Amino acid sequence: MTTTEDDWRAAAREEGTDIDALAQSDDPQTKRIVARIDTLRASIDNIDMAIVALLAERFKATAQVGALKARAGFAPADYAREEQQMERLRLVAQGAGLDTHIAEQYREFVVTETKNRHRRIADAGGDAGVLDIFA
Amino acid sequence: MTTTEDDWRAAAREEGTDIDALAQSDDPQTKRIVARIDTLRASIDNIDMAIVALLAERFKATAQVGALKARAGFAPADYAREEQQMERLRLVAQGAGLDTHIAEQYREFVVTETKNRHRRIADAGGDAGVLDIFA
Repeated sequence: MTTTEDDWRAAAREEGTDIDALAQSDDPQTKRIVARIDTLRASIDNIDMAIVALLAERFKATAQVGALKARAGFAPADYAREEQQMERLRLVAQGAGLDTHIAEQYREFVVTETKNRHRRIADAGGDAGVLDIFA
Repeated sequence: MTTTEDDWRAAAREEGTDIDALAQSDDPQTKRIVARIDTLRASIDNIDMAIVALLAERFKATAQVGALKARAGFAPADYAREEQQMERLRLVAQGAGLDTHIAEQYREFVVTETKNRHRRIADAGGDAGVLDIFA
């Protein structure tokens, strides 16, 4: 490894490595790795697209639950449901080979976003509709 | 509305409403609403299951990207990629009818979890493998 390469690697660790820019590299090994990363990135992008589409459906469904609960005078929260959901998600995560902690954090993320979304809409002077915490 | 009902509603707002427990209600309107909430909850559960399965695939793919980057001496971060991903996710969210802020928070969630996962494994004395921040 030349000193120039050492320097480049040290800089890369701090500034990040722009993989797309490396696609023009003359080194065949670098080109090969960049091609494999590109293939994996295309899959990651597809997965993200699917997840964002599913999140859109999820928020539509929870909004409907929130409206039904409000109409019936039920509370936004249902702690028994929360418990069941978390237990089920942990099992699904185990079956899918996902760290169960990540499934718990996913749950936390959707609950937090539901609350934040309501706050943002209300702050903007809009009608935030009804809040549903665990759906 | 009777005073008993008022009392029950005030308590429910604080303690949450256990929808499953209401399925035994004698009131036909309550039963109808509980049935509709149950149907929506079944969809929410299916969506969560699909998302958790996709997250498992996502973390497998990013782990592979991390290994490839480490082998090539690339940095874990790629800020150009981060910019592109965020722009794409915003567009996908708009197309799917999802608040773009939620798509941004989803991105934040996966990046944070990648870092946390590495920290947890390393803290437990295990080999955390390679860190890949934006894949």
